[in-house]
Amino acid sequence: APRYPRYTREEVGRHRLPQDRVWVTHGTEVFDVTDFVELHPGGADKILLAAGGALEPFWALYAVHSQPHVLELLREYKVGELSPEEAPPAAAAAGDPFAGDPPRHPGLRVNSQKPFNAEPPAELLAERFLTPNELFFTRNHLPVPAVDPGSYRLRVEGPGGRALSLSLPELRSRFPKHEVTATLQCAGNRRAEMSQVRPVKGLPWDIGAISTARWGGARLRDVLLHAGFEEEREGEWHVCFEGLDADAGGAPYGASIPYGRAVSPAADVLLAYEMNGEELPRDHGFPVRVVVPGVVGARSVKWLRRVAVSPAESPSHWQQNDYKGFSPCVDWDTVDYKTAPAIQELPVQSAITHPRPGAAVPAGELTVKGYAWSGGGRPVVRVDVSLDGGRTWRVARLSGERPPPGRAWAWVLWELQAPVAAGAELE
Amino acid sequence: APRYPRYTREEVGRHRLPQDRVWVTHGTEVFDVTDFVELHPGGADKILLAAGGALEPFWALYAVHSQPHVLELLREYKVGELSPEEAPPAAAAAGDPFAGDPPRHPGLRVNSQKPFNAEPPAELLAERFLTPNELFFTRNHLPVPAVDPGSYRLRVEGPGGRALSLSLPELRSRFPKHEVTATLQCAGNRRAEMSQVRPVKGLPWDIGAISTARWGGARLRDVLLHAGFEEEREGEWHVCFEGLDADAGGAPYGASIPYGRAVSPAADVLLAYEMNGEELPRDHGFPVRVVVPGVVGARSVKWLRRVAVSPAESPSHWQQNDYKGFSPCVDWDTVDYKTAPAIQELPVQSAITHPRPGAAVPAGELTVKGYAWSGGGRPVVRVDVSLDGGRTWRVARLSGERPPPGRAWAWVLWELQAPVAAGAELE
Repeated sequence: APRYPRYTREEVGRHRLPQDRVWVTHGTEVFDVTDFVELHPGGADKILLAAGGALEPFWALYAVHSQPHVLELLREYKVGELSPEEAPPAAAAAGDPFAGDPPRHPGLRVNSQKPFNAEPPAELLAERFLTPNELFFTRNHLPVPAVDPGSYRLRVEGPGGRALSLSLPELRSRFPKHEVTATLQCAGNRRAEMSQVRPVKGLPWDIGAISTARWGGARLRDVLLHAGFEEEREGEWHVCFEGLDADAGGAPYGASIPYGRAVSPAADVLLAYEMNGEELPRDHGFPVRVVVPGVVGARSVKWLRRVAVSPAESPSHWQQNDYKGFSPCVDWDTVDYKTAPAIQELPVQSAITHPRPGAAVPAGELTVKGYAWSGGGRPVVRVDVSLDGGRTWRVARLSGERPPPGRAWAWVLWELQAPVAAGAELE
Repeated sequence: APRYPRYTREEVGRHRLPQDRVWVTHGTEVFDVTDFVELHPGGADKILLAAGGALEPFWALYAVHSQPHVLELLREYKVGELSPEEAPPAAAAAGDPFAGDPPRHPGLRVNSQKPFNAEPPAELLAERFLTPNELFFTRNHLPVPAVDPGSYRLRVEGPGGRALSLSLPELRSRFPKHEVTATLQCAGNRRAEMSQVRPVKGLPWDIGAISTARWGGARLRDVLLHAGFEEEREGEWHVCFEGLDADAGGAPYGASIPYGRAVSPAADVLLAYEMNGEELPRDHGFPVRVVVPGVVGARSVKWLRRVAVSPAESPSHWQQNDYKGFSPCVDWDTVDYKTAPAIQELPVQSAITHPRPGAAVPAGELTVKGYAWSGGGRPVVRVDVSLDGGRTWRVARLSGERPPPGRAWAWVLWELQAPVAAGAELE
């Protein structure tokens, strides 16, 4: 007879909130961490991200060093064991176009399951300069295609009707591997906050539709020159990308960027096959994606199947009739997409990741943390923080890389220590 | 005996405001236009810019076509003749370092006489896409140097201690003439408005420290390559400029830009000798100035005497200890200039040139006009206008050139017609 009661994962999953008691699992053990968190607020606050589920996916990314120590402390909060018949969740239903989507990290904050759109929780977002692949925000427009790397071919249409067809080994061996640290941001980042000012249509992203990785791959420039294109072309030209992800009618996701950016050695545009030193995860474009540093994420086409040069922008829905900005006087009935250019570079962005809005913080020294980023490779030179609605300001300490001029493709993380008086209202 | 009383220019100059009656001169005739303006508000509002002085400098630039018609109308407002002994103003006092400064257009709104800093009046600013040379805003840090074009030499220091010395004819003949339409803006533009929020040190520029011209000259890139420099240099390099204008201790005005911008064919940096098809006026750098499109005006060094490539930015006061931005928590006692980068590209700017703040406008159809510009060659894609403090918005009509991607160096002018109800408070 077991010393502890047995629970299913489903039963554990009902314990996510303090009023239901907060349970987590580690291995086959079940812990009630409600009191633990209260007693150890410093070292264990992120344990709550695993509420109702397993600790391992979080500790694997963020708490490697403290794990044995915390496990020791946790032992007295053990309340049960997982039932031995517990198995991984049942396979997705057949006939569902999203049934082939990959498994995801439970820490992701999901804004839409099908297609999958999710962001890292704000608490973890700025904990690391490079976002772990498992927590990198995911913006899928369609089901994730299942790609066989052995038969994968990238089609690059050259001038005069010639075309290249590149296998994955050819893409890796024919072109020098170029590495770039770049932040990608969805144009909808922070829409949930915008909607508090005025309702906006679209996924309710919190502040996490932005992440940073070290990307490795062939330079788009090298591939285009190899295909026969020149450094400069007279007139207006665009480089169009098509993905292997397609809608029910077979239309692929697509986007384009101006030719000048595609061939500029200073623009660092990649056909990436590596993300933080690993092959691309399926959610992030396996086996090859475009990475356009400094530009809205929508142009960094995943599961890339075709590259073509055209006098017009991509005819894709997402280039023509989405990812554009309009005046507040335009609504869904009056919008004329042709009147606005497709978004490329994004403006400056800065967000607080800690503390969260509405959080109570103890009097004394408060640590405020966040990220800041700007499109177009423009560096963030300073982050000012106000705790009193803009009456007074302090300068935050920045951390990050020091890139060459015009190539600040990655965010900076920032941090500020500031005294908070008891009873003060922060705004 | 004359039919009209005789007045000196000084006497006319006392009639600038309606309470003193507004007088202007044309040729040797003196007119009291106080009632004229009231009766002809549409065609003659700009006549007030000449209040207390001569009409000709304004009409020469802005009212050529309507002049005979308005003169006809003016005739009945004639009140006098200029005294025949009237001569141009006395020459400037000897010993004054600014005594050699050139004559200026009386329409300029002067923020500082010595050194001369002046802007076109807001009423004229956006009347033309290209600002007439006489009204182009002037930002001088020092007295205007007197340069003999025959003996002028531009020194360009090449790699390995070699140097070029270029005469004006050599600069014109050895390098292809390149033309660029570019807006220059002083970093202090609109400081008068900023000071209403919080007092800021510096010249009280209104909205006119910005102007646009068609510049012609040699590309800095061509001159640098001719001097022996390469397209790319490993590491951090800057191109430093020195002017012929110098302070009392002999230190010249100086500034620098990053090497990459200087040699980039897409950055269009000029060593300009032409401004709107004429040779450079003395106030704008005769005979040669730098024009760095998309960058704060302070880097477009006038009266250029020396170009050098250096691993450090220009050691000039104006590169090191001026033209930098700081947090609101920094003041003149605590500022550490080393903590901030020198300003290069400026952010987006948009200003209303008509109507002016506080102006009463008739009920009915109101025309609102202004300019918009952004640094770095980023185009202005839209201007939204609100007449009710941001509650509702309208989209203005833009006019200007259609530049290639990333090379939107010039402002756009914008205009909006909107109905105004009687008694409405515009904000």
